[in-house]
Amino acid sequence: MKNVAIVGSIAIDDLEGPFGSHKDVLGGSASYASLASSYLCPKTKLVGIIGSDMPKEYIGYFEKREIDLSELTVAEGQTFKWVGRYADDLLSRETLDTRLGVFGDYSPKLSDEAANTPIVLLGNIHPELQLHVFNQLKSPQLVVVDTMNFWIEGAGASLAKMLKKTDLLVLNDEEARLLSGQHSLVIAAEKIKAMGPKYVCIKRGDAGATLYYGDSVFAVPAVPLSKVEDPTGAGDSFAGGLVGYLAKQGKTDIETIKTGIVVGSAVASLAVEQFSVAGLLNVSLEAIQKRYDTLCSMSSFAPAQLD
Amino acid sequence: MKNVAIVGSIAIDDLEGPFGSHKDVLGGSASYASLASSYLCPKTKLVGIIGSDMPKEYIGYFEKREIDLSELTVAEGQTFKWVGRYADDLLSRETLDTRLGVFGDYSPKLSDEAANTPIVLLGNIHPELQLHVFNQLKSPQLVVVDTMNFWIEGAGASLAKMLKKTDLLVLNDEEARLLSGQHSLVIAAEKIKAMGPKYVCIKRGDAGATLYYGDSVFAVPAVPLSKVEDPTGAGDSFAGGLVGYLAKQGKTDIETIKTGIVVGSAVASLAVEQFSVAGLLNVSLEAIQKRYDTLCSMSSFAPAQLD
Repeated sequence: MKNVAIVGSIAIDDLEGPFGSHKDVLGGSASYASLASSYLCPKTKLVGIIGSDMPKEYIGYFEKREIDLSELTVAEGQTFKWVGRYADDLLSRETLDTRLGVFGDYSPKLSDEAANTPIVLLGNIHPELQLHVFNQLKSPQLVVVDTMNFWIEGAGASLAKMLKKTDLLVLNDEEARLLSGQHSLVIAAEKIKAMGPKYVCIKRGDAGATLYYGDSVFAVPAVPLSKVEDPTGAGDSFAGGLVGYLAKQGKTDIETIKTGIVVGSAVASLAVEQFSVAGLLNVSLEAIQKRYDTLCSMSSFAPAQLD
Repeated sequence: MKNVAIVGSIAIDDLEGPFGSHKDVLGGSASYASLASSYLCPKTKLVGIIGSDMPKEYIGYFEKREIDLSELTVAEGQTFKWVGRYADDLLSRETLDTRLGVFGDYSPKLSDEAANTPIVLLGNIHPELQLHVFNQLKSPQLVVVDTMNFWIEGAGASLAKMLKKTDLLVLNDEEARLLSGQHSLVIAAEKIKAMGPKYVCIKRGDAGATLYYGDSVFAVPAVPLSKVEDPTGAGDSFAGGLVGYLAKQGKTDIETIKTGIVVGSAVASLAVEQFSVAGLLNVSLEAIQKRYDTLCSMSSFAPAQLD
């Protein structure tokens, strides 16, 4: 088993949608990803910053999952806040407000131990901040990077630098199209691989996830869900499950990465079934295993000799 | 090996799109499906009607593939014509004109031999015509039905009758949403199963195909293609490959159906790489096998014990 470090935002969100109107709920890329990872790997370290307004209850969520909080900075001021509204069908959302708070000046100095973490997830934050953390890493075995439209459009030069250092990029289909300027995801993945990442994992919601590497492709379907309660953090939970599994195995070969992607899909399917991070609190490794087995049987068919 | 009968339209299409402007090209659901099926099963029978204007060259395509044309009616008049225009990105198309011609009065009387065909594909035609053929079948082993938006919206009552008799329905994601009134494909498939079909296969283009049956789901990805030349007939080629494989195996158990769906995906991926039916003429069983093997390796991951 190896350590995994998860860098990203920890937020207090206000959310509106078919699930109602909720104020001050725990959110942020690193919150979802570290909770997801903690089920796979007990050596999950959360790297981030919170303000003095962060409810003790939310810190308790991380503590209960025994997430390593030694690199969690608590600063005077307000925690990062995202205010968002989902459409009734949950297929689109708009950002109503973003308040950086203490996150605005965050420039973490990693401890020696953190800098030596072999598996690192640089969650969905400003690519300059991702680079700042990356440059402190001693000799990472695998660096997984997440990003989003906001950075692709607004911080393209920094993102390009980050991509050159990225082993595995996770992004969704629309982000892949935006980053590559190509509608075809096959060609988009080619273009993105040429920007740096050895592995490009494109998430497609209920159409599953596809990993592009070398000249090969690996695809896993999504767990069929009758109801999605709250899609917030689905991608972060996916990435967290992936890196947590890699760390637990201590391996980053392609077969382990494939399994990790299936694990990530399984965890994400549990996360979206409940509001905010609840799906990552009221869950068990057994539940993740069950979803993994479902994906396994869903994808299984025999080789065939057609003639 | 068993016989397979494919009922549907045989058309002379005019197509416009990024591939240029082409007049009088071979089209129609049964053309694509029977050509696709012929690679898997040499006992493929085409049931349909053409006008006296059908070029000999096109009939030669079927003859070259040794498709059984004994139930092909040749009538005085014009062959069914579809005039369509694709958007530059091939993601949408509009129907500019439809001329039924000899298809307007088509009411086939199956021979005894045809009525005894065990595997039958009722391609994308008016559900009343599908019912007319179905009612002549003696004791089919498996009836596969295709449909489209046009019939869902315009012939709902007839389609409802047809669905009660359908073993396996193939349709695309938008059609599934329209037919069920549900956005979630999981719930859409539930609703559609309740209308009659034991198996519901939802095609999602480059996101692959998903089969819903009982409480289970089977998913196959799409073959990654760098370029799609002409998506016309993709669904028909898929259905044709599926029924051709089932007939060749002479079995309709769930594992054979799963393999058939992968075969259908493989054939469809070859069909869309060339204009009109060219991708189904200049191809070989070896090429289909290669695509099958690609889908096999793309979908393959190991069972894992997560704890």
